[in-house]
Amino acid sequence: MNKKDLFANLDKMFFPKSVAIVGSTDIPGKWGFLITSNILGNAYKGKVYPVNSTKKNIMGCPVYPDLKDVPDGVDLAFVTIPAKALPETLKTCIAKNIRAVVIISSGFSETGQEGKLLEKEIVDIATQGGITFIGPNTMGIASMHNDLVSVGTPVHPLKGGLGIISQSGNLGTQIIQWSISKNIGLGIYAGTGNEAQLKTNDLLSYFGSRHEVSAIALYIEGISDGKGFMESVKHITKVKPVIALKGGRTSTGSQAVKSHTGSMAGSAEIYNSMFKQTGVIQVDNPSELLYVAGAMSVLPVPKGNRIGIMSLGGGWGVITVDECEMADLKVPSLSEHIIEDLNKWLPSFWNKANPIDLVGEPNPELHIHTLNLLANWDEVDSVIALGTVGQVAFYRTGLENQERIMGKKFSPEIVESVLKARSDVELNFFKEMARLQKETKKPILAVSLAQEDTDFMVNTEHGNVITLPTPEEAVNIIKHMVRYRNYIDSL
Amino acid sequence: MNKKDLFANLDKMFFPKSVAIVGSTDIPGKWGFLITSNILGNAYKGKVYPVNSTKKNIMGCPVYPDLKDVPDGVDLAFVTIPAKALPETLKTCIAKNIRAVVIISSGFSETGQEGKLLEKEIVDIATQGGITFIGPNTMGIASMHNDLVSVGTPVHPLKGGLGIISQSGNLGTQIIQWSISKNIGLGIYAGTGNEAQLKTNDLLSYFGSRHEVSAIALYIEGISDGKGFMESVKHITKVKPVIALKGGRTSTGSQAVKSHTGSMAGSAEIYNSMFKQTGVIQVDNPSELLYVAGAMSVLPVPKGNRIGIMSLGGGWGVITVDECEMADLKVPSLSEHIIEDLNKWLPSFWNKANPIDLVGEPNPELHIHTLNLLANWDEVDSVIALGTVGQVAFYRTGLENQERIMGKKFSPEIVESVLKARSDVELNFFKEMARLQKETKKPILAVSLAQEDTDFMVNTEHGNVITLPTPEEAVNIIKHMVRYRNYIDSL
Repeated sequence: MNKKDLFANLDKMFFPKSVAIVGSTDIPGKWGFLITSNILGNAYKGKVYPVNSTKKNIMGCPVYPDLKDVPDGVDLAFVTIPAKALPETLKTCIAKNIRAVVIISSGFSETGQEGKLLEKEIVDIATQGGITFIGPNTMGIASMHNDLVSVGTPVHPLKGGLGIISQSGNLGTQIIQWSISKNIGLGIYAGTGNEAQLKTNDLLSYFGSRHEVSAIALYIEGISDGKGFMESVKHITKVKPVIALKGGRTSTGSQAVKSHTGSMAGSAEIYNSMFKQTGVIQVDNPSELLYVAGAMSVLPVPKGNRIGIMSLGGGWGVITVDECEMADLKVPSLSEHIIEDLNKWLPSFWNKANPIDLVGEPNPELHIHTLNLLANWDEVDSVIALGTVGQVAFYRTGLENQERIMGKKFSPEIVESVLKARSDVELNFFKEMARLQKETKKPILAVSLAQEDTDFMVNTEHGNVITLPTPEEAVNIIKHMVRYRNYIDSL
Repeated sequence: MNKKDLFANLDKMFFPKSVAIVGSTDIPGKWGFLITSNILGNAYKGKVYPVNSTKKNIMGCPVYPDLKDVPDGVDLAFVTIPAKALPETLKTCIAKNIRAVVIISSGFSETGQEGKLLEKEIVDIATQGGITFIGPNTMGIASMHNDLVSVGTPVHPLKGGLGIISQSGNLGTQIIQWSISKNIGLGIYAGTGNEAQLKTNDLLSYFGSRHEVSAIALYIEGISDGKGFMESVKHITKVKPVIALKGGRTSTGSQAVKSHTGSMAGSAEIYNSMFKQTGVIQVDNPSELLYVAGAMSVLPVPKGNRIGIMSLGGGWGVITVDECEMADLKVPSLSEHIIEDLNKWLPSFWNKANPIDLVGEPNPELHIHTLNLLANWDEVDSVIALGTVGQVAFYRTGLENQERIMGKKFSPEIVESVLKARSDVELNFFKEMARLQKETKKPILAVSLAQEDTDFMVNTEHGNVITLPTPEEAVNIIKHMVRYRNYIDSL
């Protein structure tokens, strides 16, 4: 299939106006139930046609006994029925001019020789009929700008720019769940399943072409066409970052890959070299994959490797500087104009160095002022602000201390007003971070004082900013962005 | 001072029956306020004597105009008044037979030559008078088995076995805040400040001697007496783990150390070698310091490096195996008796390998059964269970999907009962983990499916178990424990 037809089919797959669910059911726990309830529960706005030969109504939708009974046109069919029924179902799809199919059903090449033959049969039918299918044995797809969530786990992902392609469905679904708790918005997700017909390379090209996706996270266990991968990905990395986690980098890991997806994992060196040559950012584990890709889906790419740091106290500055040097980032000495400026704000013994140690001074204006000084300083390319945000937990405990001492509780209004006042201070700081990030095109990252206190991604009127629980994670994100910058500049 | 007298003074410092606070105040934000409100707000059970020349009553306690006016004996004095008043205050302490002092006040060697002289003066007074003081310029101490929290940030730490010694107060306080959100119990904490008299080495020896402390986390920027450090610590690591983070390991980092605590950071190689020779576990950043030390404060040390893994799905197993091999851990092939046993429980195409892939089977008995098989398998020394726990978020979203489909809400009772049923399944799994951990003396770690869903440390009737948000963190903890085991075995 040529690229134009393929992308047209993938538009039907990821941006369908109507979907049929072959094997839909209202029996909890079954795939047909999970897909249907996730589609309806995430308020998909297109038409939904459940197909089931024994039910009349599923979750409030009229049911059709067979796919061919659906009276209207269908853009995308999900299939969860047993493997052996697939050839017939695909023929019906062809007859109904359905060009995109998501095959959830398992029982194909992953189960042995018989399954392999069946898989070959459905590929032949689909290819001859002009159908593009993902799977079989995929754990689903999601397309947030079309409000379509059809994975096998109940999740309500947020809308955003992150694309995820995963050769493991359970890893992909777990990363989606994490993205929700980190407030990271998802663009498109695809679990590739057995890749009988549609390959990771095809999806990568398609994600690269879509404006809804600003950064692509990739979990791969094995790529069958390495040359094709390099060809596709090097065009994408010119315009948007691709962040990859390779499963099976070790000898025991590649054994586990074989037992999982049946892929030959290939040597780690080959993948390292492929990624390096094509500007793919390689990460070491799933959380790093999400954090780096999530951050890069909203942050500007820094122009160089110089970092300005502000801190509430000395120890955090030391740790952050160590991390920077180990990541090949530079922490330049503070310019005279910044020292002179801050002399007016800080006690005489302040450290006059980068990281700027605010020695615990609480004045919110000082923090905003220092942030402006660093962001506008032409000797740095990125800024890290340690500890200004993430203090609400301390205010709450302070109030609890007072309550214990007084032997009575504050009214909920008082508690709320104190915590809101502090939240507002932090929200103002986030807004200023976003404003400066937009204006200066430098990434500005915050590190939270209390680990649980802020979301990873904070949405503000001026754009999105990233807040991390630890300095090492902030440095790691900047490190990867700088490497990406170096790759782009080398082209 | 000999060790016996020193430890007697430190008993007064960390387990006082009465404390005076010289400089106590009810003006929010001041150190005298923060210390007093944290002591009272954490329900310290000993006597509290605020000292302030202008107040009659602070937070419900009668106030004494001068330390010498306190009518009763005092075990420990906190001092927050200006530096120049310290010599006089220490003389009063001597007169009142107070042997332990926490000097919060700053304005000593960290501010210049004059401060240096003043610091020398107070050391001389204290040493001649038989006083042991911590600081000056410390951000406080905490001793949870004495309900004494006297740090400068409002926190309510939990009670447990973790000892923390920090050469940065703000880093120490932040780690304490994290420990609360991770449900990690604290034994004793000391922020060392300027270490004018009491050194990190002394505190290390003392923490090593106390049964309340089962593992010690150490943040150091510089040790003045390296030989003394090695002498102290090698006795401690024989009986309990010491986990260290060295600040200033890089050249820019050591510049930052100089500007922070004034220490000479020393070369990273010297510290690496000191740690290696004495069995100190070195970590790379603050969160790793907390997680490894927190875990080791409750887990048995594994006998070797062989890991058994169970997983809900293939991708997570692959990732975990990669992490294991990179950490020099072995993932042995599954024994025949386990394969035969699980053949009775799992579909015929199950992977028959370690990691055991439960292919999403939800049956709680299967999970408990598999856990037992792995824990009792004599070819592994540690067990990692991926994804059985941390599913409550998915159940919640599943209910929300149904609500959206029905167009109405479930009653709070129904929601609660569904979520409780799932929580109970997971709690039972945690209990079984703890039971098996106790019985087999193998560490058994869980990795949660949803990142925010479970505490890091889970307390059960059979003991505490650790649950991690990611497989790499579980593997990292086991890696450090195995290295510690190798050190112990080499003695």
